[in-house]
Amino acid sequence: MNIPSAKNQRVVIIGGGFGGLNLAKGLRNKGFQVVLLDRHNYHAFQPLFYQVATAGLEPGSIAYPFRKIFSKYSDYYFRMANVLRIDTSARTVNTDIGTLPYDYLVIATGATTNFFGNKQLEQLCMPMKSISEALDIRSLMLQNLEKALLTNNADDKDSLMGIVIVGGGPTGVELAGALAELKKDILPKDYPDLDMRVMDIHLLDSNDRLLKAMSEKTSAKAQEALLSMGVDIRLGTRVTDYDGKEITTKSGEKLRAAMVIWAAGVKAAYPDGLPTESTSSGRILVDAFNRVKGLDQVFAIGDCAAMISEENPLGHPMMAQPALQQGALLADNLDRFRNGQQPVAFHYKNLGAMATIGRNKAVTELPGFNLYGWIAWVAWLFVHVAKLIGFRNKIVVMISWAQNYLSHSRDLRLIIRPFKR
Amino acid sequence: MNIPSAKNQRVVIIGGGFGGLNLAKGLRNKGFQVVLLDRHNYHAFQPLFYQVATAGLEPGSIAYPFRKIFSKYSDYYFRMANVLRIDTSARTVNTDIGTLPYDYLVIATGATTNFFGNKQLEQLCMPMKSISEALDIRSLMLQNLEKALLTNNADDKDSLMGIVIVGGGPTGVELAGALAELKKDILPKDYPDLDMRVMDIHLLDSNDRLLKAMSEKTSAKAQEALLSMGVDIRLGTRVTDYDGKEITTKSGEKLRAAMVIWAAGVKAAYPDGLPTESTSSGRILVDAFNRVKGLDQVFAIGDCAAMISEENPLGHPMMAQPALQQGALLADNLDRFRNGQQPVAFHYKNLGAMATIGRNKAVTELPGFNLYGWIAWVAWLFVHVAKLIGFRNKIVVMISWAQNYLSHSRDLRLIIRPFKR
Repeated sequence: MNIPSAKNQRVVIIGGGFGGLNLAKGLRNKGFQVVLLDRHNYHAFQPLFYQVATAGLEPGSIAYPFRKIFSKYSDYYFRMANVLRIDTSARTVNTDIGTLPYDYLVIATGATTNFFGNKQLEQLCMPMKSISEALDIRSLMLQNLEKALLTNNADDKDSLMGIVIVGGGPTGVELAGALAELKKDILPKDYPDLDMRVMDIHLLDSNDRLLKAMSEKTSAKAQEALLSMGVDIRLGTRVTDYDGKEITTKSGEKLRAAMVIWAAGVKAAYPDGLPTESTSSGRILVDAFNRVKGLDQVFAIGDCAAMISEENPLGHPMMAQPALQQGALLADNLDRFRNGQQPVAFHYKNLGAMATIGRNKAVTELPGFNLYGWIAWVAWLFVHVAKLIGFRNKIVVMISWAQNYLSHSRDLRLIIRPFKR
Repeated sequence: MNIPSAKNQRVVIIGGGFGGLNLAKGLRNKGFQVVLLDRHNYHAFQPLFYQVATAGLEPGSIAYPFRKIFSKYSDYYFRMANVLRIDTSARTVNTDIGTLPYDYLVIATGATTNFFGNKQLEQLCMPMKSISEALDIRSLMLQNLEKALLTNNADDKDSLMGIVIVGGGPTGVELAGALAELKKDILPKDYPDLDMRVMDIHLLDSNDRLLKAMSEKTSAKAQEALLSMGVDIRLGTRVTDYDGKEITTKSGEKLRAAMVIWAAGVKAAYPDGLPTESTSSGRILVDAFNRVKGLDQVFAIGDCAAMISEENPLGHPMMAQPALQQGALLADNLDRFRNGQQPVAFHYKNLGAMATIGRNKAVTELPGFNLYGWIAWVAWLFVHVAKLIGFRNKIVVMISWAQNYLSHSRDLRLIIRPFKR
């Protein structure tokens, strides 16, 4: 891989998401050689994927090249690579661009879409775990509307205009809200010859309420807001079958939709080569210092890691905050490990959760109090702009949002690369 | 195609580039039904493709959805379609989404990349006539640099870092300048382990000067500026062969480059079905009113049309201005034709030409006087922002340029969708 043999001990980080990138930043000036491996050459800001999918933001506004970040750090290396396997006895990482020895290895490979083993759903539903997949959703939505114009068959039109979102977590709720706004404000002007009453946006969840990680009051607020926007919410509903035109639920109901967005769950993703005792229920078992169970100098952080304790019998939630906090702490702990000092145990600090639903509508849970409506929405805007990486990105996102807000429009309804199955 | 049969006479426009879109806008409130057919659902601003290719602008900033423009007009229809054939006796257009009868047909299909029949070059060189192709150039440039890091073979490294631009017209000159700036300001920071002296940017042209459509003084100024930026300019040079790693010129020279951008020429593009006498040398013959030779109520404007006169034995130059002007005039003339009035003959008004080379460097030829350097560059900026469609696009492009200028950077060095041959 042409990385100079390290004077300093080498930390290899697999994955530059929230956890991996925060760790890399935290290791600066600590006297390590840092190598980051990622499939993409940029950090992607996942919480705003749904805005790319619904024509509100450009992909480049929520992506930031790793090399630009690392250009200011010394003894940092980035390589675009797919990691194939970890060899913990040889202490190497095997990738499609070669093999790399490590002194410390950190697995920060995040999570991928979970279709719970249903191959048919996997083949026909649209996931949204990468920028490319978000762009595919944008394209398919527009392609289906273009096709809907061409048919006089009511069932086909119904299907082409129908959208099913499976999963009522923050992603599903935010997508449903954004699509409902498109349907209300923009599509009737774009497609005056389509009857928009035919366009149904269905939000399905197998639980008995939306946003089940948040409080019941918050769920109720989100549900109320989405209902008022015309979203068809079906709780306690599981999808069993989909033929590309119509879904079937467990109770036998059928809903026509040529696009089904799958936001129903994620599962940890990690490379091959870990011993059996290091994983459980599809996640990597780590101790309070993010050390992988049974391995030496191998760590895992974020979605892929399960730090199980009495307090957290299932590990931490698979979201940005635990990854960010574990990345930051591990940077300091690696320094301590190397120097033979006592590491500091991880304690998750729940900073809250939020989901936006539409114009002036959001739900925000902060430690101690909740916000709803306009004030929650403003809080959501500020937090997301603040967390975006890159000055240009912050400015462009703010301008885009201001423009979208003032004009009730979203100008990025472009099919740059048509989606093909 | 589900377009209501027209109360008004139907004008079908094939192609929503500069010519077709300007015509569509000009027909507003003239009492026609207007149907625009285009492969894409957006108007693309071709003069800035090179900035998308060189990570300076996002694709969404230079694209604008047709439906957004048409949403304000009545009796206007857009259909995303590939036109397969024109049937001038039946007065229909055959497309991949059905057949459409016309009262007036306007062919505004522009031009496509001309490889002059060399299939090998066509297969391996990168054209830049669509946003998607511009993104492919951006991806391949970055993918090649990532690969260059991995090899110790000097020839392979030379090839992976080498870029050949074939064609010294405005596109080639602008690309060469933008790439030279990337090489100077950004890539050394992004790739500290690559020796950027190895990266050669070659600009080849078969003519004896760059920008041959402009004055000799302007050519000299552009050449001087590019030379000072380190571009290797080779005039009187033709490419005869390319194997994906190395090009061979007519004189037998070899230049290593894993990316060859083909900006050496365009040829008119138009659908099948025109009678032989209607075309010549690959363009559609039109009279002074843009009527296609030998046909009734069929028109052609812009790059695909050749309006040959004593004054213009080769027709007008294949660039934006003639297309825009012909589109505007034809809107009025169609009204005159329908009303039995005398149409007005087209006279091309040369508004000048410009090409930007880099920071504070451009060449601008206006009727009567030329501008060079900083003032030409400012003129270039203003003209391009003014011509962009969409308020959001103007703002985002201005912010992006300001940021690029102040930071000497371009943040969009993203490989969102890797280029695969």
